[in-house]
Amino acid sequence: MIVHIECMNGQVNVGIVFDDLFIFFHATKMNKPSIPKGMRDFGPEEMAKRNYIFSVIRQVYALYGFSCIETPAMETLSCLMGKYGEEGDRLLFKVLNSGDFLSDFDREQLADISSLSFAAKVCEKGLRYDLTVPFARYVAMHRNDLSFPFKRYQIQPVWRADRPQKGRYREFYQCDADIIGSDSLLNEVELICIINEVFSRLKIPVKILLNNRKILSGIAETVGCAERIVDITVAIDKIDKIGADKVFLELSSKGFTEAQIDRLKPLLLVDGDNREKLAQVEQHLSGSEVGLKGIEELRFVLDRMEHLPLQAELIVDISLARGLSYYTGAILEVKAMTVEMGSITGGGRYDNLTGIFGFEGMSGVGISFGADRIYDVMTQLDLFPKELGVGTHLLFLNLGHEYADYVLSVMSKLRAGGIRCSYYTDDVKLKKQMSYANNLSIPYVALVGDEEYEQRCIMLKDMQKGDQKSVSVEELLSILQTTFLL
Amino acid sequence: MIVHIECMNGQVNVGIVFDDLFIFFHATKMNKPSIPKGMRDFGPEEMAKRNYIFSVIRQVYALYGFSCIETPAMETLSCLMGKYGEEGDRLLFKVLNSGDFLSDFDREQLADISSLSFAAKVCEKGLRYDLTVPFARYVAMHRNDLSFPFKRYQIQPVWRADRPQKGRYREFYQCDADIIGSDSLLNEVELICIINEVFSRLKIPVKILLNNRKILSGIAETVGCAERIVDITVAIDKIDKIGADKVFLELSSKGFTEAQIDRLKPLLLVDGDNREKLAQVEQHLSGSEVGLKGIEELRFVLDRMEHLPLQAELIVDISLARGLSYYTGAILEVKAMTVEMGSITGGGRYDNLTGIFGFEGMSGVGISFGADRIYDVMTQLDLFPKELGVGTHLLFLNLGHEYADYVLSVMSKLRAGGIRCSYYTDDVKLKKQMSYANNLSIPYVALVGDEEYEQRCIMLKDMQKGDQKSVSVEELLSILQTTFLL
Repeated sequence: MIVHIECMNGQVNVGIVFDDLFIFFHATKMNKPSIPKGMRDFGPEEMAKRNYIFSVIRQVYALYGFSCIETPAMETLSCLMGKYGEEGDRLLFKVLNSGDFLSDFDREQLADISSLSFAAKVCEKGLRYDLTVPFARYVAMHRNDLSFPFKRYQIQPVWRADRPQKGRYREFYQCDADIIGSDSLLNEVELICIINEVFSRLKIPVKILLNNRKILSGIAETVGCAERIVDITVAIDKIDKIGADKVFLELSSKGFTEAQIDRLKPLLLVDGDNREKLAQVEQHLSGSEVGLKGIEELRFVLDRMEHLPLQAELIVDISLARGLSYYTGAILEVKAMTVEMGSITGGGRYDNLTGIFGFEGMSGVGISFGADRIYDVMTQLDLFPKELGVGTHLLFLNLGHEYADYVLSVMSKLRAGGIRCSYYTDDVKLKKQMSYANNLSIPYVALVGDEEYEQRCIMLKDMQKGDQKSVSVEELLSILQTTFLL
Repeated sequence: MIVHIECMNGQVNVGIVFDDLFIFFHATKMNKPSIPKGMRDFGPEEMAKRNYIFSVIRQVYALYGFSCIETPAMETLSCLMGKYGEEGDRLLFKVLNSGDFLSDFDREQLADISSLSFAAKVCEKGLRYDLTVPFARYVAMHRNDLSFPFKRYQIQPVWRADRPQKGRYREFYQCDADIIGSDSLLNEVELICIINEVFSRLKIPVKILLNNRKILSGIAETVGCAERIVDITVAIDKIDKIGADKVFLELSSKGFTEAQIDRLKPLLLVDGDNREKLAQVEQHLSGSEVGLKGIEELRFVLDRMEHLPLQAELIVDISLARGLSYYTGAILEVKAMTVEMGSITGGGRYDNLTGIFGFEGMSGVGISFGADRIYDVMTQLDLFPKELGVGTHLLFLNLGHEYADYVLSVMSKLRAGGIRCSYYTDDVKLKKQMSYANNLSIPYVALVGDEEYEQRCIMLKDMQKGDQKSVSVEELLSILQTTFLL
């Protein structure tokens, strides 16, 4: 006897050669299942928790008058390229053109073409990188059908070819809300209320950091280097981490003069509550029109918030910059109080987002909840409601197919009453069925045997307490409704 | 003066040349917004309707004990390729590898490489083509963490590089439920109940066509050409369209003998109710073990359904094949009663779906709702609940920022009571604000001016009836809750 293993075309055949007969034991395609790196499967338990977060955000957005829209996963590359900087262009997932895309390609060119220019020739589409640019494209494209101010929310995945690492994935959800076509600061107020409401409902204690791009401009002006706002902002953004002295050293090494740094110093030392901070900043920025405008805007928002019930802590933080990217007014960021974690929500005002698509003069302001980080915070703080762990309320065990019609009719009544139930459809030992219920954390099981069938009742067993009792269908429904639906 | 238009790098500059000075009027990037063909944006109204369909399906799946999972948009191409036939491989959207993917590429090869083999070299990932293969991959990959039978549902978009045409898109949602790891026919019964329940809730009158792959095998055996089951099935599938005579001609032209066709004839003429049909088929298939097994299975399902409340019509249709693809037992398909439209839901049993990923012996059965076609049917039959047209319940008009704090505090109370409200944040004429409310179909608007502010009340206007009255905050909440939430 010879054990024989052969591998052809990814097919592995294992067998024995016996008297010149090749006998297969097993033939299976070697298609070891895996998923692309940085991507995730979400099982039932994770999905229940994720959907809980999404549904809270969705509900609050709707309460504040935002409508849901969705845009396609793919956008044209001309829509996406150049919107996220060089880094972003590199991180876009590009989709190969369909069909015989090499047919009208000059093969000579291929000899020394770069990957990037080649990609530009064989790809016309890319996966969306965020929800903001597709939203701007949507607004520009549908401008004639929309009424402004347009308040939309959008909860969809985005894709980035980032190097995967802990907490950073290549596919993740963003949960954005934006108001476009209004420059009223009341929109900022409403967005802060949304943030407060979402985190109250999720029971996450948070602080909301507030700043205004105009204050940052005012600081740069006051220092005497309006055009070096980025350098100044990057430096003062580090004050919490490295301390004021090192910030000054850094600025000095970047060519800022002693005099300039001296003008910056008092700005970094403002303290007290929000109003006190703003008053001090106001003094220092008294020579900067734009700076004073920023203070006025921030104060307007704080004034409005004062009259509203707020669980989150509002903190003016003039070092907050969020990369500055496209913000032109308010800048905000949310941090969980008791967990070491980056920002879990961010946002701000941008003055001309749709301009890149030829639709000028639309001021907008928006926020984005980071669902993955919120998930991690809630896991760490054990904040997910316990009932999310319960998928199916009740499992009917299978004591024989002769009871199937009765069980099916009982289930039909329970489901009409909102009870999630399932029937163990296979004929296996009760012990195996019970451990199935256990594995799925199903809190109740029901047994129907001869006695129950004849008396038209059900034996209900509480899996946690272990006790069981015989109940009528009506009693069963009532017990389960009281336990799970009220 | 010379009008001057210049275009560089996609940037268009329009200006006038005046005394040698070039004065720009306008500089904007020529980024005309568009989306890739076959892709769609969904605006607020469409999303409300789509989410309604999804949420009904979701709720019913949960009532029947199915858990939600999600898999990533991208799978490895080795997971996807070869699962959907040659046509499917061609229609897969392939994602270009990131980074410098041409760097270790032998440029010489490029001279005469085909598009297909080139794609295989520069793409490792593809967008999912359906939810079934990713589910099989999921089950095989997570087999040790799952309890079987595993009942999952999954509602996610899929992508196909099909030629776009009316009703066929390159991105569309599938809504699948499958039970894997059980060969009990009770699962078929439960899935039919789900179909019945979903369409009852959506108020779409449907007929559910039922068949069994084993009956088709039995017919092929009886005809005397077990191995030509596909030819036979394809032919008899056309009987409704082209009539029996043409079907026989077609079979004859494909080389079937007179005698074989004579054995097929009576099978195509079975009629009466489901039981009568099955009895006739049983007679004709009496010589086929597999055929009789198919009849037994179908009869078991019908027997169970007889005891259950059913709004959908169940119809045995032995010509139903659904492409045969991977089905091994039950085959089912759903059609809307009064609308000309292809199948709006389909499904069946497959015996070894996870085998391709090395996980053998798992029988499964599943269904898939076609959300886009269901949407079209509901639109044609005008079945969407009217309340879906109402996003925001109430719009507060803006009579001046001095009332903002009062309005914000009233809105805070209304929202706590579940009322979706919005504040027109800009200072524009009332007429414009009113037409905004009209455009968005907001049913109520509220005005707060001096009088309302002093008396702590709100002027509530019914946009449909046109009447208005002054109410307290409590009255306002109660009116809106009664109208919209009860």
